[in-house]
Parts: sequence; C-alpha cells; structure tokens
Amino acid sequence: MRKILVIGAGKSASFLIKYLLEKSNKEDLHIIVGDINIQNARKLVSDHENGQAITLDIFSNQSRKDAIENADIVVSMLPARYHIEVAKDCITYGKHMVTASYVSNEMEDLDKAAKNKGLVFMNEIGVDPGIDHMSAMKVIDEIRSKGGKMKLFESFTGGLVAPESDNNLWNYKFTWNPRNVVLAGQGSAAKFLQEGTYKYIPYHRLFRRTEFLEIEGYGRFEAYANRDSLKYQSAYGMENIKTLYRGTMRRVGFSRAWNVFVQLGMTDDSYHLEDSENMSYRDFVNAFLPYSHTDSVELKFRHQLKIDQDDIVWDKLEELDIFSDTKKVELKNATPAQILQKILMDSWMLEDDDKDMIVMYHKFGYELTGKMHQIDSTMVVKGEDQTYTAMAKTVGLPVAMATLAILNEKITTPGVQIPIYKEVYEPILEELKNYGIEFTEKDVPYLGYNPLNV
Amino acid sequence: MRKILVIGAGKSASFLIKYLLEKSNKEDLHIIVGDINIQNARKLVSDHENGQAITLDIFSNQSRKDAIENADIVVSMLPARYHIEVAKDCITYGKHMVTASYVSNEMEDLDKAAKNKGLVFMNEIGVDPGIDHMSAMKVIDEIRSKGGKMKLFESFTGGLVAPESDNNLWNYKFTWNPRNVVLAGQGSAAKFLQEGTYKYIPYHRLFRRTEFLEIEGYGRFEAYANRDSLKYQSAYGMENIKTLYRGTMRRVGFSRAWNVFVQLGMTDDSYHLEDSENMSYRDFVNAFLPYSHTDSVELKFRHQLKIDQDDIVWDKLEELDIFSDTKKVELKNATPAQILQKILMDSWMLEDDDKDMIVMYHKFGYELTGKMHQIDSTMVVKGEDQTYTAMAKTVGLPVAMATLAILNEKITTPGVQIPIYKEVYEPILEELKNYGIEFTEKDVPYLGYNPLNV
Repeated sequence: MRKILVIGAGKSASFLIKYLLEKSNKEDLHIIVGDINIQNARKLVSDHENGQAITLDIFSNQSRKDAIENADIVVSMLPARYHIEVAKDCITYGKHMVTASYVSNEMEDLDKAAKNKGLVFMNEIGVDPGIDHMSAMKVIDEIRSKGGKMKLFESFTGGLVAPESDNNLWNYKFTWNPRNVVLAGQGSAAKFLQEGTYKYIPYHRLFRRTEFLEIEGYGRFEAYANRDSLKYQSAYGMENIKTLYRGTMRRVGFSRAWNVFVQLGMTDDSYHLEDSENMSYRDFVNAFLPYSHTDSVELKFRHQLKIDQDDIVWDKLEELDIFSDTKKVELKNATPAQILQKILMDSWMLEDDDKDMIVMYHKFGYELTGKMHQIDSTMVVKGEDQTYTAMAKTVGLPVAMATLAILNEKITTPGVQIPIYKEVYEPILEELKNYGIEFTEKDVPYLGYNPLNV
Repeated sequence: MRKILVIGAGKSASFLIKYLLEKSNKEDLHIIVGDINIQNARKLVSDHENGQAITLDIFSNQSRKDAIENADIVVSMLPARYHIEVAKDCITYGKHMVTASYVSNEMEDLDKAAKNKGLVFMNEIGVDPGIDHMSAMKVIDEIRSKGGKMKLFESFTGGLVAPESDNNLWNYKFTWNPRNVVLAGQGSAAKFLQEGTYKYIPYHRLFRRTEFLEIEGYGRFEAYANRDSLKYQSAYGMENIKTLYRGTMRRVGFSRAWNVFVQLGMTDDSYHLEDSENMSYRDFVNAFLPYSHTDSVELKFRHQLKIDQDDIVWDKLEELDIFSDTKKVELKNATPAQILQKILMDSWMLEDDDKDMIVMYHKFGYELTGKMHQIDSTMVVKGEDQTYTAMAKTVGLPVAMATLAILNEKITTPGVQIPIYKEVYEPILEELKNYGIEFTEKDVPYLGYNPLNV
C-alpha cells in the first residue's frame, strides 16, 4: 500500500482525510494521520481499515523524521510557520510534499533541492490561496489560447456564514481564525493597479473604499482590498495588465461598521492597555473616547464618529453589547485587538447547527481583435455542519486531490510551486465539480474603470 | 584655562557657543568646537581669542578620544543616536557630559559608571525636553512646599513661526527638522491620563482630538497629544496624579488640515511608491484616490474627505500647490512621507528675514486645604534671525549654563540625569530671564475635567 502521512488533524483536515479514506481501497492507500493530540487524529480517521492515528510532535526531531521516512508523500496541515522543518525532512528522505499555505521565503529556498531530487513541493492548494489560483488560471489560459490580451483581473474571496444561519446584523460569524479577522488589512497600505495607475489605501481608510459585487441568487456583497494585489502579477504572466485588484468579501454594510473599530483604535495589536483585566466592555470603549463628567460613553461615541441614532451601524454596535458595564474583559495585559476579539467571540461564534459559506468572484477583462470583453466567474460553497465546513471542504479537497495526483504521477513537474499550470488545475477543477465546488462563468459587457477609454 | 569641548556645530549650537565665548575671559574658558565640517565650527567660533574650531569625525575613534581626553567637560550637540560613543569615552577619561537629548537606554546604562567616577551626565537640558522640565518642577516643588497635592499637570510646547513672519494659511513654517514634523505622532496610540482614566488615541485620530489654549497677547493655539504623556510621571513624583497630558502646540486650524494628509496616507514612511521619481505632485495625490476617468483629482479628493469648496482646509491645500501637474517629485524610490516633506518644504521654509517662536504652556492643578487651585504658566520666545533662532536660543542657553555650572561645581550630583532638581533648575531659570526666557505664572480658577467632582 502507498502511505500518505497527513500532519495536523485540525479544522481544515476533515474533508481531506475523508476523501483519502474513501479512495483508499481503490487506490491502495494507507493514511497515517499524525497530531500532537492523538484524539484529534482518531476522530478524523474513525475506525477506517486503511487509516491510522499516531501521536506526532513535530518539535521532536526523531518522531517527525521517522514518520516522514516511512511515508510515500507528506501533507502538512500545520500552521504555516511549522512547514519548513517538515519540508527539510522531505528533502532529506526524498518525499513529495503538499501544503495549503503561502510559499514562505524559506520554502522557496528549497526549490533547487526539490528539483534536484525530482520532488513535487505543491503549496497554496487550498481555497485562498488555491482554488483562486486554479480557477483564475483556467480562464486566463483560455483567453490567451484564443489570442486575447488580459487587461483587467480582479479577484475576491470571502469566508462567511451561510444565508440560512445568517442571523445577526453584521451578517458575519467567525468561520476561521478570529484573530486574523480582527487584524485583517493591518500593516503597510493596500496596493493595487487601476487602469495603469498604482493606488494605495492606508489601513484606516481601507474599510471605506469598498467595491460592490453581485452573485446571482445570493445578492450583494462588498469587498475591501488585500494588502498586496500585485503579489501574483508575474506568476500569472500579467506584467502588462492595466487593472489588478484582489479583495476580501463581506456582506454589504460590514465594512462601514467595522471601520468604527478601526477609527477608535480598537483593532490595534501593538500595545497593551493598563489594567485590562479589570475593565468592563464599557471601560474598554471609553478608553478611546475623551473624558467627560457629563456625557455618556454612548453620546461621546456617537459624537466622535458622527453616528446618527437611527444609523444601522449603531444597532450593530449595540448587538455586540460593547457598552455593557457588567461584562468584563478578564484578559491580563491585553492589546486592544485581543479585547475586541474576545467581545466579538461572544457574538460571532458559529452555533452547533450553523453552516458556513465560501464565496469567490473573479473578473477577467481582455482585448480580442480590437474589442474589449469581460468574463465574470463566481463560486459559492456551503458547509454541511461544523466539522464538514465549506472552509474545510474547499481547503482540504484540492490538497487531497493534488496529493493523490502526485502519488499517481499525474503531477510530475518537480520543485516548489503553486497550482497555476494546466497539468494541475484542469483535473482538480474537474473533480471538484463532483463535490459541488464549481464556477459559473458568464460573458458580461466590459466595464473596467475607463469604458470610453478617455 | 578650562577646556570645553562642544561636538557638533549645527543649527542648535549658535547661542550655546556665543554664550560660552562671552563668558570665556571672565570664567577662564577655552572653547573647542568640533564638527565633521570645520567650516560650520569656524562660523560659530568666528575669530574669538578663546575659541578654536577643529575637524572632528566622531566615527574616527582616535580623533574623538583625543579631543575628549583633552577637554575638562564635553557637550554633545550631535544627533541623539551618536551621543553614546561620546559618553563611553567620557566615562573612560573621567569627563562630565551635557546633552539636550532624551536619555536613551544605553545612556541610562552608564549611570552607575558615571556615579562611580563622580561624573555629572546631564541630559534633556534643551527646551523640550529641558526648559519644560525645569519650569514645571519649579512650580511643582513650590506647590508641594506649601502642602499642596498635585492633581493635574498638562504641558504643551510648540516650535512655530513668529507672528510678524506668519504669512501662510497654515500659520506654520519649519523651524526645526522637517522630517520629524511629517512623522510626528506616528507609532503606537498616544496615551495619557484624564481624571484617573487612561486614554488612548490612535495616530489617525490624533489631529482630530486637539485642545485649545490661549496665551495673552498671542491669541489662541491648539495642541495634540504626545505619544507618551506618562513618561515623566514617576520622575516628577506624580504617581497619584489624576490628569497627566503632554502635547504639541500649533496655531488653531493646523491640525484639522494636517489630518487630511494623515487620512489619505501621505505621512506613511513604511513603504515606497512605484516610480516616485517621475510623479508630479498631482500624481502623488491621485495615488491615494480611487481611479476615475470622469472625475478630477480635486473632486475625488473633496469627496473622499468630505471637504466643502468653501472650507479653509481647501485653501490651505491649494496654497501648497499639491495639485500641480508640472511640479515633479524627483525623488527615487521615495516613501509618501518623504514626498510630502518635499512638497511642504517648497512652502514652509523660513525666509531670510523670518523669525521663529517657541511657546510653552503648563497647567498645574492642585489641592490645598480641601480646595482646588490652578496655576497656568506660559512662555513665549522669539528668534532674532535665522542663525540666532528661538529654537537655538532655548536649546543652547540651558545647555551652556549647565555646562558652566558643572565646571564651577555648582551642579555636583553625579550620574545620568535630567534637570528636575532645584540645584539645577533654580539658577538656570533665573539666569535665563536675562535672555528674555521667562515664564508668566497666573493663579486661575481650577477647571480640570470634572470641576463638580461628579
């Protein structure tokens, strides 16, 4: 039997392991799932005859090396910063490797060694990054094959709550790491290209510069810019493109309300509040408002941010109970971002029967025989429950399919790579359709940002 | 003769050297002024019989050590980051040292060594920090000596243009390092205390949370909070104070207009703009605005920042010519902050006959025999011309006076210190009056932030 080692049995491994176990008899697979907590691994392996749960501490060199040496291919579902030790062992023992994470500089440095040994190190093959690369490159390659020239590429992804579980005013719940949601967009200005002009948005303006998007049957969404929209410009071969924009999708109205937290400084993770442990939620809010012995926290808040009393933003804030003087922060030496995260987790955690939803929207603008054209491509995937989430499905299935394809020598190009080549994306996108992960492509009138070319 | 070595003959050394030369016959002083560019030193020494200009490259260990070994006391007017090498040599050769800069951690670490050798290492004895420490501690010590308890301390300083040279809409010109003005307030949130409550203002709100101040004969000013108002809380012995706030003064209206640059992201120094060299000022502005093929940069700007056409902020922006498409940035690989600085330097440099002005405002709130009192203390100093500026005067004279006092063993307490003790501040504040540097103290009704104590 061919041995697949999956390291890390966290949230995103459920569909991945389920897929591999289902294929295991036909494909002659033995699936070894290693986790620091063997219970996590056992839960996902269940009692399957071809599955095996093991305790695997990646900080223990010997147990890590033994497990990797014993496998035919290694899938790392660890947090991104831990991949590199696994990757080095894969080089040493000559094993292929698959991850859903961004290629780090250290990973990139292994490219030559992987090529020398004929090893495939496939990365960024989850949903975002992952399905976005594959679905975009499919359309881009089609446009190029008929002689079209790419002029515009915009790509948006969102991890949201499914409409049937959407019951708060923010139309949002945490379907992934809450900390990343609180810190989203921080750092240097967001950078992108519009009609040949570089544009920059500082963090404190990011949530006021959104774009609207419609998905048939799902209504309207908004998107704010990712920090570096130009990251894949050369990987996608779009050096001469005029418009290049990548963004994160939310339901309309989320960003305008979120901006209130940004403005007050509640998302800041760079310093610690005095005596945070003993603050009430109300004290926390008040720390960002001027002192007054006459005016309430509520009125100061509305005045500072110019929020009318009948503004829906105000209802959103009240829904979170941020003005409570009985609820306590109870976090020692906490940053504003850590406290805000705690407050949001009171309201935004998925309930037992809640479903999540992944949405993706690409716009491709191109020139063909002197005319401008546009293709819009959209995808919506809903989760089944809290273990088999849309996030786990869209992250795990491409990883699993790529793993099997490498094992079956359908993917053979060696080196550290991302899934932008036909060899990779074509069979995987095709198979994903069987699992309800499918794009709807539509020819639409080209609009761009300068339709009259003035 | 006693030898005083002054290292660095830059902007702030003029009054310092003038003072020491004037005292040199009576006090038996030989003043050696060292600068990497001997012309700078010669200009300030002139042909004075007791003065000597030397070339001094502080990165050349030998020439630095020789000069220090040869002196009786060393004054470092170098940029703050270069003091430490001088300070180490002063320890080695047993020399006292004076600087106008903030005590760095490395400087603080020399405290024990300085004490062991009986050396005075006096720092923060310019204007801000310097005169602010001395003038504040004088009043605080007086309040304490009559049994008062400090409840509120607010302290504001501004380096501005004198009213007679104030001829632009911003009521501002660069009287000091322009780069520091552009970057002012950046980093973690500003932190201060109001009526026992810690308050935090993020950078992007800092210029919308100003306070007003009146100085008799000079009209109204505004102030924005410094990053760490609590820095001297324990040094000043104010552990139990209710309100503690330090700020920077500008003319009213400056901050509201400056906030426009902050909002757009033009003060960001953390990344570089693409092709900055070839941008016009207009291109620079447009990089922070959405693309449009129909709307002008001006309209997009007004719309994004909600500026009415008859708002004085708009006139201030136009005065800077930031919408010019003929003026070029001409800086390679520049950050937004570097480009903004260049644009401002076109408009805000002092002209040949312009005078600068330093303003300072302290508020002392205290309780005495059950009643609340307040003393307001203000200072205004104007420059004479562009060499003998108010900034050079208020920075240089206290440094010079402290140097002579140490040499004459009037200041004897050894160690790394700042001028908060009577031994230091009393004679210096007294002597500064002879040079027109004088505080006006007034008893005023106590207001605080909670006058009714509710």
